[in-house]
Amino acid sequence: MSSSSAAEIMSVLFFHTMRYKQEDPENPDNDRFILPKRLSFVDVATGWLGQGLGAACGMAYTGKYFDKASYRVYCLLGDSESSEGSVWEALAFASHYSLDNLVAVFDVNRLGHSGALPPEHCLDVYQKRCEAFGWNTYVVDGRDVETLCQVFWQANRVKNKPTAVVAKTFKSRGIPSVEDAENWHGKQMPKERADAIIKLIESQIETDENLDPKPPIVATRKACGLALAKLGHANDRVIVLDGDTKNSTFSDIFKKEYPERFIECFIAEQNMVSVALGCTTRDRTVAFVSTFAAFLTRAFDQIRIGAISQANINLIGSHCGVSVGEDGPSQMALEDLAMFRAIPSCTIFYPSDAISTEHAVFLAANTKGMCYIRTSRPETAVIYNQQESFEIGQAKVVRHSVHDKVTVIGAGVTLHEALAAAEDLSKQDISIRVIDLFTVKPLDTATIISSAKATGGRILTVEDHYPEGGIGETVAAAVSMDPDISVHQLAVRGIPRGGKPSELLDVFGVDARHIVGAVKRMLLN
Amino acid sequence: MSSSSAAEIMSVLFFHTMRYKQEDPENPDNDRFILPKRLSFVDVATGWLGQGLGAACGMAYTGKYFDKASYRVYCLLGDSESSEGSVWEALAFASHYSLDNLVAVFDVNRLGHSGALPPEHCLDVYQKRCEAFGWNTYVVDGRDVETLCQVFWQANRVKNKPTAVVAKTFKSRGIPSVEDAENWHGKQMPKERADAIIKLIESQIETDENLDPKPPIVATRKACGLALAKLGHANDRVIVLDGDTKNSTFSDIFKKEYPERFIECFIAEQNMVSVALGCTTRDRTVAFVSTFAAFLTRAFDQIRIGAISQANINLIGSHCGVSVGEDGPSQMALEDLAMFRAIPSCTIFYPSDAISTEHAVFLAANTKGMCYIRTSRPETAVIYNQQESFEIGQAKVVRHSVHDKVTVIGAGVTLHEALAAAEDLSKQDISIRVIDLFTVKPLDTATIISSAKATGGRILTVEDHYPEGGIGETVAAAVSMDPDISVHQLAVRGIPRGGKPSELLDVFGVDARHIVGAVKRMLLN
Repeated sequence: MSSSSAAEIMSVLFFHTMRYKQEDPENPDNDRFILPKRLSFVDVATGWLGQGLGAACGMAYTGKYFDKASYRVYCLLGDSESSEGSVWEALAFASHYSLDNLVAVFDVNRLGHSGALPPEHCLDVYQKRCEAFGWNTYVVDGRDVETLCQVFWQANRVKNKPTAVVAKTFKSRGIPSVEDAENWHGKQMPKERADAIIKLIESQIETDENLDPKPPIVATRKACGLALAKLGHANDRVIVLDGDTKNSTFSDIFKKEYPERFIECFIAEQNMVSVALGCTTRDRTVAFVSTFAAFLTRAFDQIRIGAISQANINLIGSHCGVSVGEDGPSQMALEDLAMFRAIPSCTIFYPSDAISTEHAVFLAANTKGMCYIRTSRPETAVIYNQQESFEIGQAKVVRHSVHDKVTVIGAGVTLHEALAAAEDLSKQDISIRVIDLFTVKPLDTATIISSAKATGGRILTVEDHYPEGGIGETVAAAVSMDPDISVHQLAVRGIPRGGKPSELLDVFGVDARHIVGAVKRMLLN
Repeated sequence: MSSSSAAEIMSVLFFHTMRYKQEDPENPDNDRFILPKRLSFVDVATGWLGQGLGAACGMAYTGKYFDKASYRVYCLLGDSESSEGSVWEALAFASHYSLDNLVAVFDVNRLGHSGALPPEHCLDVYQKRCEAFGWNTYVVDGRDVETLCQVFWQANRVKNKPTAVVAKTFKSRGIPSVEDAENWHGKQMPKERADAIIKLIESQIETDENLDPKPPIVATRKACGLALAKLGHANDRVIVLDGDTKNSTFSDIFKKEYPERFIECFIAEQNMVSVALGCTTRDRTVAFVSTFAAFLTRAFDQIRIGAISQANINLIGSHCGVSVGEDGPSQMALEDLAMFRAIPSCTIFYPSDAISTEHAVFLAANTKGMCYIRTSRPETAVIYNQQESFEIGQAKVVRHSVHDKVTVIGAGVTLHEALAAAEDLSKQDISIRVIDLFTVKPLDTATIISSAKATGGRILTVEDHYPEGGIGETVAAAVSMDPDISVHQLAVRGIPRGGKPSELLDVFGVDARHIVGAVKRMLLN
């Protein structure tokens, strides 16, 4: 049992140091305990290697700055998981924000999964590193109960610095009273939603208030920043986390209005997602993580584990696809839909204009589980009016007639390309139906199938994403059991390059001209 | 221009410190230079934030331990990218392996993309952290050319420690002689494959030597370990990188045979992929990165950027799917096919037995670009004989007759479930065709379509993966333009739990019993 080395540490924490109401484990005033190590008698997601400290940072930040409460946060880490860079992202975060309510215990038992670790039992390696990252640090014998009690007490009195306790331990020591452990353990873990609290928060969020008049051309990334600020006005538990991209994603609009609810996480996306997870436990906040969509690939494992832990966080990825333009391929998210679609129960919004973006933000705030909102860099026309209502899993048929020959499905910039293609084709007496998905997951299969049947069974999908795991594949899979429907896919194939957005949409075959060509070819067969 | 702050540093490196043959930029004896910062006059993948130092580690490791050469490796990092945990993974790696041929220059210009960074111009923060991570460290004024020359010269004489130069710089200084810069710059970057070298390496890899007799039941993860050792015997440039899982992935078989070509990277997957990238530049090595498939999600961004940089690395992900069993959902890769399919030009092997696994390893070694091999934990029957030949993009029809009613497509454990289902169905006089994909990408569309047409247009896919981005969707998309073919999908839906592998395959609906049921339902319609 890999965590037997920490028996005394956990005993001291639970029976001496930590303050919590045993009969009320979800009480927001309780101290928190986070255990990323694998531990067979804990019934929450284990194998969180290197992610627990980030979540602990989120809880401590929430306690200090949002709740302004006195509860303290304790996190036990194994030495082997401290190899993960995400741990060092979290260490930098905690000292930068002076999280003196956070204690990290390094359980240094010298051994990894498959052999000894580089620092072996040299505790001063951990000590120096923690100190260099700005932490108040103690080195202790992990078996010495009295010293453990003492340092946890001392940590309590240190101001403006988080505390690291580097404990020398030995793997595979016998655990005294495992059953006792099981009793007090599960209760300390953030586990089930406190439904009453979320209902309260939800009731405070107004989704149907009147909207201000919008200019006719707005980038969805900017609409997203505006919507966040509006949401922040409606509910004071809404927070935004940024990965040093606030001036490009327009999350700085929120920051200007509500600086005290904005967390700058710098370029450390793994930690940012873990912090958001921590901030939302016990439903203390409604969190939006915002950065370039491409950079969220950095946090795929954190997002994956977040879903397993039923995390209630919202992620916003801007600058999707080749329509990013000049910044080049490393900044273009062309695999983000594949990534988020493979997250069970994740809701994926891909709004096409400013109005639907605002609805996406408000719906995400009110939706349990993980939500992802994909936004675009170019300015696009506003196509919906302010009275339009939006629902998750409900696509919009934005153009249709009884003469439609092909159903074209787009989202984001490609919806506007589809509408331009429809105009062009109508001059040639070819009528097409155009669908705006709004949510890519769940997919509105009913609307897609009924539209396809009304247009000769022909579907054309167009997306600013690689073909793998994107809109074309989800549509193809959704209609694959219906032999009368065929699906043609336009998507970005191969590694793109930088250039002007409109040029790139053309070069990679997802603009109006290519839609016109594809529709004509489909009608020839 | 964000890198104008580093003008003097780069001038000193290129015109004074570095040794390289200007007329022969690809010469393996040249010193190396890695620039992860965005820089508009460099024609390689930019925006590598936080990944360059890992790649530099790979080059330095290769120089010191594989090439045993005197070339040195220089890496310029921005202060803002040092927030990425991957940088700290790389710092720990370099000191652990005493990479005294590596120099990292921290260009501390104080500013991030969207504002000031936490340490501002406090250079001692960087100094303390680098020292705590075991680096020889100098703090300098980045504009002081004489001092820069001196510290690079001193670094040359330090043994067993990598050197960090923490340089105070100022953003937006004017760059002298940009055109000159352009001239000497491109030449220093690893860019194009040196075809002659790779051909030499390839010619040394024997893919068709006689194989030893295999036991009838072998886990593909174990077959993979054996194949790596065999490949290591055939070619002494084959290396294996491990993320502290060698005893579970069986890469320790390779380590036992060739310890000097095995790199233990500990739990730092981001850095491991970057190190592999560095090891393979200029085709110095043929690298296999091996860990649990689930943990490769940690390195999605490194893999994504690797593909943009046309990296020639091979990744092996073991313990895929719910068939992992007791270890629980965090250890089960159910989204790895979605991730790797969304990597342009990545070849994806998903072998189903020991023989095909060995072929996958040998084919990957001989294939340019990125390769991914998905292996499984359970022991499965050997179904191919030793004379069977395998090709990329060529599926195997492993069971067929003229009476087949449905084409069932499986891979890995689900192929064996499909074969068991075929046996069961044959007792009820229902005959099915069974296809082993071997490679998921590229997909053998021709074999799939011809089989489907021979079986009434009916395809059933079965996979130990989420439905999104997996085998079912790639098959549905491949046949989506053919209205006479319908595809039914069996896949793992929802977040799994731990349990016995065979129970989980049943609970999540991808075992023989569910295949039998699905085939019967398809024949009723």
